Amino acid sequence: MSVQPDRMNPSLIAVPRGLTNVAVTDTEISDVHGLEGYYQYREHSAIDLARHATLEEVWHLFLFGALPGPARAARFADVLRSADDDADVHELVAALAPLGPDVLHGVKAAWPLLSARRGMRPVYDLTEEERRDDALLLTAALPPLLTALWRRANGDAAGPALPDRGVVANYLHQLTGRVPTAQEERALSAYLIAVVDHGLNASTFTARVIASTGADVASALAGALGSLTGPLHGGAPSRVLDALDRIESPHDIGPWIRGELAAGRRLMGFGHAVYRTADPRSELLKAIALDLGGDRVELALRFEEEADHALAASKPGRALHANVEFYAAIVMERVGVPREMFTPTFALARAIGWSAHIVEQAADPKIIRPSARYTGPALRRA
Amino acid sequence: MSVQPDRMNPSLIAVPRGLTNVAVTDTEISDVHGLEGYYQYREHSAIDLARHATLEEVWHLFLFGALPGPARAARFADVLRSADDDADVHELVAALAPLGPDVLHGVKAAWPLLSARRGMRPVYDLTEEERRDDALLLTAALPPLLTALWRRANGDAAGPALPDRGVVANYLHQLTGRVPTAQEERALSAYLIAVVDHGLNASTFTARVIASTGADVASALAGALGSLTGPLHGGAPSRVLDALDRIESPHDIGPWIRGELAAGRRLMGFGHAVYRTADPRSELLKAIALDLGGDRVELALRFEEEADHALAASKPGRALHANVEFYAAIVMERVGVPREMFTPTFALARAIGWSAHIVEQAADPKIIRPSARYTGPALRRA
Repeated sequence: MSVQPDRMNPSLIAVPRGLTNVAVTDTEISDVHGLEGYYQYREHSAIDLARHATLEEVWHLFLFGALPGPARAARFADVLRSADDDADVHELVAALAPLGPDVLHGVKAAWPLLSARRGMRPVYDLTEEERRDDALLLTAALPPLLTALWRRANGDAAGPALPDRGVVANYLHQLTGRVPTAQEERALSAYLIAVVDHGLNASTFTARVIASTGADVASALAGALGSLTGPLHGGAPSRVLDALDRIESPHDIGPWIRGELAAGRRLMGFGHAVYRTADPRSELLKAIALDLGGDRVELALRFEEEADHALAASKPGRALHANVEFYAAIVMERVGVPREMFTPTFALARAIGWSAHIVEQAADPKIIRPSARYTGPALRRA
Repeated sequence: MSVQPDRMNPSLIAVPRGLTNVAVTDTEISDVHGLEGYYQYREHSAIDLARHATLEEVWHLFLFGALPGPARAARFADVLRSADDDADVHELVAALAPLGPDVLHGVKAAWPLLSARRGMRPVYDLTEEERRDDALLLTAALPPLLTALWRRANGDAAGPALPDRGVVANYLHQLTGRVPTAQEERALSAYLIAVVDHGLNASTFTARVIASTGADVASALAGALGSLTGPLHGGAPSRVLDALDRIESPHDIGPWIRGELAAGRRLMGFGHAVYRTADPRSELLKAIALDLGGDRVELALRFEEEADHALAASKPGRALHANVEFYAAIVMERVGVPREMFTPTFALARAIGWSAHIVEQAADPKIIRPSARYTGPALRRA
């Protein structure tokens, strides 16, 4: 692809707006093959991992570069679970919850406070092992932070942990108040694994920019979480359900969709910036939704079918298919994740990706400091 | 400047590491002329503003695009001062201070909490006026947040405000416990104005990336503050003083500097990525330091002279001169800013710049979403 020096200022390099297709860094963490319709986490197919691995194994793959053997996997799961008993986490929740933030604002506040309490230092002052330790402590604190803040906001304290179950089952247990079935745990694990990382999205890039300054891991994670709360990035899955809610009978689907498109509105959950074929994540989650079954899943299938027809007719050649958010919403609802916890649940997965990118960025110190092209009025001479 | 498509993946655009000289956005806010040794805020010389304007006037220039007339300036100063009486700010400080964060981690926590309490919404859901309102509320809260967190950490409550003085005098008053002279106020104002903005530095870029996702203003500001706490960005001024502290007599300066350079260490406060001539900010601050006078200022002058000689001898052709951080440290110390408040004081100024960049970025919705070049192992086929 050809790039030009900037015409107004030849010392500047002109690139596409939004940095589309600009390779800002090398990475050994993940790769997306948008045309071929697959993506990989290190040398593994992400979809295969989502089908067969545990979240703990993938967490280890991201942070340490390899899947763990059984003994190491068990030790790593213990480390992750120990965050449930972290006194600092509970003290922070007790201090922050009465201030009334939603859970994501609560985590944005809790991460820097946790960093300060643990005396976490700038990444450039740390060894790689120390960076991993900080990243692990902060991301392991995320499930208990999210669930404790959510339960407090609903007038409830955190429930007892399920000592024999993993992070995903415990997370679901805290949100629903009931012990999840193995199928529910498997379904939510698959969703979480499928969205741990996906190219250099805006939040991951934010994490890398902040880490490139040498800031502490918590600053990079909290900044990334800030990006994720933007409506152009996270947040769509719950809007998918808002659309389904408006439909009273399967017969209304077609007219409703055509009405939305005729009014020039986007269909939430359809289309993706990267995939031109079907999004492999939505295919995975669709299969999981079918296994889970139920009326809502039937409605979603009909919705997807009608939307595919309507989009092919109204936007021919655009190849707009159901994206990860469409069936993510269906799966999360089906396993009992409350709708206001959809974006926090996405954040829980993505934070694992961020932490790997932070560790990788910090290993190769160079501040990310671009330029801007000044287009305002010239200096007014005195 | 010539740029190439990436050799391994021709759909990617290869750019210099760290995005050096890559024009990632247009801006009407500011411009740096590194070769000519000057910089501008909109159409005004930044150094002229630092010499003659108030911080409130420059704050208005950044947020509204023009310097205010006298009546509007007075009203704007009232708005800024009203943050001193913001009950939410005081409640947040009371909740956060006992958790023991340093002031910058405290602000990173306070901004998202303040955003949540005020119900601030994603920038893309707001009018430009509403974005400005949010930015103004959050940045106006910064001086009282910084000083109250600092006083609390030192076992002290915030003191009474000086109703007839501006933001800078009040800030200094809270930090020192004494009413600043007009000369001290002027000196600190000049420093703050001189560092409100300076090209697309890493923290400002962070603010723009987060804002580009449509996140709330607080997320963008808190993320930028995260970048600023990295040692490659903020943080150097206090290390300048650490160097001066080590020198017992003016006769020791030359040997000490040559020893540092011989050991391969950097001299804190010398050299800048942008300016090849003298840094205009350090010239301004040097003049201000000379006006303030005192033994420490004399020592700094001698230090700069010796460092210039030693650097010219050991790194010929590099043109390493005193940068903004060198005399910033001298001026801040001389007017009574405690050393641990140097970086927070820099942040107070820079946050004004961030807020203008956030408002500008949000006015032109397009997510900043670059790519990465995958250099890890190929997919392992099952």
